[in-house]
Amino acid sequence: MASPRLKQWFTILEWLPNARGRQLQDDLLAGVITALLLVPQGMALALLAGLPPVVGLYAGILPPLVYAIFGTSRTLAVGPVSVAALLVANALGGLGAEPGSTEWLHGAVQLAAMSAALLLIMGLLRLGELANFLSHPVLSGFTSGAAVVIIVSQLPQLTGIPLPGDANLLTQLYTLIIGIPQLSLGPVLFGGGSLALLWLARHSLVRWLARMGISPRLALVASRAAPLVIVLGATGVSALGGHGLPGLSLVGDIPRGLPMPSLGFLGGDGWRELLPAALVISLVGYVESVSVARVLAWRRRERVDPNQELIALGAANAGAALTGTMPVAGGFARSMVNFEAGARTQLAGVITAVLVALAALLFTPVFRYLPLAVLAAVIIVAVIPLIDVHALKAAWRFDKADGTALGVTFLGVVLVDIELGLVFGLAVSLGVFLWRTGHPHAAVVGRVPGTEHFRNVDRHNVETWPHLLLLRVDESLYFANTAILEQAVAARVAEQPELRHVVLVCSAVNRIDFSALETLEQLADNLSRSGITLHLAEVKGPVMDRLRGSGLLDAMGGGRIFLSSEEAVEYLGTRVPPKPESTGD
Amino acid sequence: MASPRLKQWFTILEWLPNARGRQLQDDLLAGVITALLLVPQGMALALLAGLPPVVGLYAGILPPLVYAIFGTSRTLAVGPVSVAALLVANALGGLGAEPGSTEWLHGAVQLAAMSAALLLIMGLLRLGELANFLSHPVLSGFTSGAAVVIIVSQLPQLTGIPLPGDANLLTQLYTLIIGIPQLSLGPVLFGGGSLALLWLARHSLVRWLARMGISPRLALVASRAAPLVIVLGATGVSALGGHGLPGLSLVGDIPRGLPMPSLGFLGGDGWRELLPAALVISLVGYVESVSVARVLAWRRRERVDPNQELIALGAANAGAALTGTMPVAGGFARSMVNFEAGARTQLAGVITAVLVALAALLFTPVFRYLPLAVLAAVIIVAVIPLIDVHALKAAWRFDKADGTALGVTFLGVVLVDIELGLVFGLAVSLGVFLWRTGHPHAAVVGRVPGTEHFRNVDRHNVETWPHLLLLRVDESLYFANTAILEQAVAARVAEQPELRHVVLVCSAVNRIDFSALETLEQLADNLSRSGITLHLAEVKGPVMDRLRGSGLLDAMGGGRIFLSSEEAVEYLGTRVPPKPESTGD
Repeated sequence: MASPRLKQWFTILEWLPNARGRQLQDDLLAGVITALLLVPQGMALALLAGLPPVVGLYAGILPPLVYAIFGTSRTLAVGPVSVAALLVANALGGLGAEPGSTEWLHGAVQLAAMSAALLLIMGLLRLGELANFLSHPVLSGFTSGAAVVIIVSQLPQLTGIPLPGDANLLTQLYTLIIGIPQLSLGPVLFGGGSLALLWLARHSLVRWLARMGISPRLALVASRAAPLVIVLGATGVSALGGHGLPGLSLVGDIPRGLPMPSLGFLGGDGWRELLPAALVISLVGYVESVSVARVLAWRRRERVDPNQELIALGAANAGAALTGTMPVAGGFARSMVNFEAGARTQLAGVITAVLVALAALLFTPVFRYLPLAVLAAVIIVAVIPLIDVHALKAAWRFDKADGTALGVTFLGVVLVDIELGLVFGLAVSLGVFLWRTGHPHAAVVGRVPGTEHFRNVDRHNVETWPHLLLLRVDESLYFANTAILEQAVAARVAEQPELRHVVLVCSAVNRIDFSALETLEQLADNLSRSGITLHLAEVKGPVMDRLRGSGLLDAMGGGRIFLSSEEAVEYLGTRVPPKPESTGD
Repeated sequence: MASPRLKQWFTILEWLPNARGRQLQDDLLAGVITALLLVPQGMALALLAGLPPVVGLYAGILPPLVYAIFGTSRTLAVGPVSVAALLVANALGGLGAEPGSTEWLHGAVQLAAMSAALLLIMGLLRLGELANFLSHPVLSGFTSGAAVVIIVSQLPQLTGIPLPGDANLLTQLYTLIIGIPQLSLGPVLFGGGSLALLWLARHSLVRWLARMGISPRLALVASRAAPLVIVLGATGVSALGGHGLPGLSLVGDIPRGLPMPSLGFLGGDGWRELLPAALVISLVGYVESVSVARVLAWRRRERVDPNQELIALGAANAGAALTGTMPVAGGFARSMVNFEAGARTQLAGVITAVLVALAALLFTPVFRYLPLAVLAAVIIVAVIPLIDVHALKAAWRFDKADGTALGVTFLGVVLVDIELGLVFGLAVSLGVFLWRTGHPHAAVVGRVPGTEHFRNVDRHNVETWPHLLLLRVDESLYFANTAILEQAVAARVAEQPELRHVVLVCSAVNRIDFSALETLEQLADNLSRSGITLHLAEVKGPVMDRLRGSGLLDAMGGGRIFLSSEEAVEYLGTRVPPKPESTGD
């Protein structure tokens, strides 16, 4: 028996010995269905990343096998994904290499190796929670923006009109529009035809087959196999003479065989230039993977361990680097397909990997006449669902700041730069959070007559007393908001000449930092120079523990800590005492 | 009569018409005392910044006059300050110019102009609160570190041992120690002597004079005049032959006269390279000025307007640029001197400026034989109080994170780079805050028997029920902590097989963002697939307003919003109902 500790690292020791019967069947079917989808997508994604198509197949072999050993999600489909492919193309395009060249491939493998290293380091340091700082709106804006950039990047293949790759989106669209007279027949026929068929297969095929009385399971297999069938059909049409159409580019010779493990990627330079891209690839890939894995795990009451996922995805990327392919992650769409096809354990992923390996070993020559326009159509249909307009509307409606973060990220990715867009979004979302916690809601409270409840004087009809000020701050006190607290008190002191006691109601204060402590000490001191005493009320246990050891209680002089606002009012009295002379200068 | 709106911008319309009698006398005396201090300090600070000594006097003329027109603090002494001088030297040293050269001076004036622009822009955008994001520990570590760097930078003048200016502190100290055999007699005698006298004047002079029966007011004037007297005395000794001592450098010829306003600084390049330094200079100068101004305003129940201060300090720096001098700010020490000397209004600052102008116009030739070692001693004595070891101890004792932020800033400033040190500190303090809000305290709560109070099950002996989970999160829900909340719930769901209802107690939730909303919707959905219903309790008004318009209440299905935890327990019952089959797959 493997120890629980060992099982925690090598999750395969958990799922493999328990695999049997019906579950094996389910995994087998799911593995086949996912492989049918992965073969055309893998080749298409490799082209998106500027790599030879077979490299996309390689990304579907060793990485998912490695993930099956370490991963905590039983249904996550690890392999080539569209956002990572786009980021690879973007990073390498900036270095001046040529797509398809040896340097370009080397750079992609370097990115996989660096992603592996970053993920493994974060995993060993147990920093999985860092990913939580990518907010949903930022991630949504990033994904939608990346999908738009991907679609535009495929338009030259689909139209035969060359676009300036390094221009911004608006220039590219303008070039496309003025280039319409130069549309080539070959790409338009093959690309447009595939797009239409892929679209129908995705949206209507299952319904049609059901109406024809075919079993749901078979219908599912058929609809998932549709991209491969369309690709093979288009290849056939092309081979039978279609490749003679004007403007058509073909996949061409794909070397047959399996990738040989090699550490050759360790040589060469450019590591430092690629580091920011590797950071974004690994972070975004990780967040996407864990999000999908969590959603799927909930449905079967399984658990995903975010830190072990860092290790598993890091190891999968190491597998990618070792077999000379691009960075990998757990893709959203393919994982959903895997899950819905009935996958129960990572065995489904293993079966997918074996089938993709067979395809790379035996069938690549089949794709010699495959038009690139068809693969472009495969990518476009795969990424269209990533454009999430609903999220923008919902985020904007719920909170303008969240909508803004989403919009800024989207526009940054689409119009400026993919990675910078993400940085913009991060900056906006963190900035908004800091700004808000830095501007806490603070209310002067008074007593609801006849009760012990204290409420905002601006919203409720409450009792107040000229010598008392009860101020409630709805936020932890920390450096960014203490100055504002001080100003709020100073403003009230100036307005309320008979003031003798300020009671800070701390019911919403979960933490207090050193800056806040110093501000409170100074506030107590400043107030006492004006003959006013500072008190606290409703201080939470952990905050009180902190304050006890500090100098605040001394600085407060005669000030007290009250359990409740009511206790403060009872103790300090509701009658105004005669005011002594100020002790200030 | 000037309108209130006009008075808000031109504060001089407020204080000048009301100046009379005793107050004028007070301001006159305070202005004289501050000028006595400013003349030697101004020359010394100019040398620290790598500028001709007279430029330091210029910084004490137009800038305080401009501040008197716009500033909201009545006692802030605006002029040359040590940290800004150090930052100027640091920024220009990185550009390859020579200290004392025309390019160097031009760069310093550019920095003043850029600081002016930055402060004015921030003021017009009313961004004064941005300064709140510099926490006390970071500011303290920065100031202490800057003081140490300043002291080390003065050691060559004081010892005659040349130090490598661009080496780090440890190398400099090492060079100093192995250079001890090369100590020069001139600097050591003049520098050491001045240091000793300045030290005695600051720490013992007032006490001695009081013991001799001299009135406190006169004693104060005498102690503040001491640096000028010491400087004049040393100049006399030097002129009478002391300048022949080996290794002694003298101030030399200082051109007499007032600075002529000129826009010549607008030419030239290097603006972009100097921008980061200008940002740090203006931000740090602003924060220092506003902190002092606030402290002093409290003592007399006056108010400081942080946004108007941006305008006033921006205008003062524009005055500095116009008169060809370095960036200015409100210095801590000189403002305290001004206040304690009895300053009532900005008239004191005007008087200081007039006296400094007279000094620049008439008396600069006096300082021809002044040894630089004496000015080095003036700076060192001025900055030693900025090194705040007590703050480090107090911050560390109160909160390790605050102590760390202070220590990182200090070490960064001293060992790496002044500006980078500040950036490190900012990163640590913001990072700690984000990390903590991202890891909120969450407690499963139960009912204290016989009461309606609900407390942490780990700390108190409370009632719980196997079909109910009451979870209280002590933090606003936002993107960085929602995943952790979800994990906490998932962990409890796995542990508590009879669970039917999860009640999220939101008494400490002041805000909820879109990511949190989506997580809660998904959580409700995931739970309902397992036959568990999500409820909320004690939702605050503003949060409830938000949630009402969202899809969460729909996603919660049969889930309810309870006013209190007690109401939730009463409604959901304390008896475990029979568990239905899971509705998951």
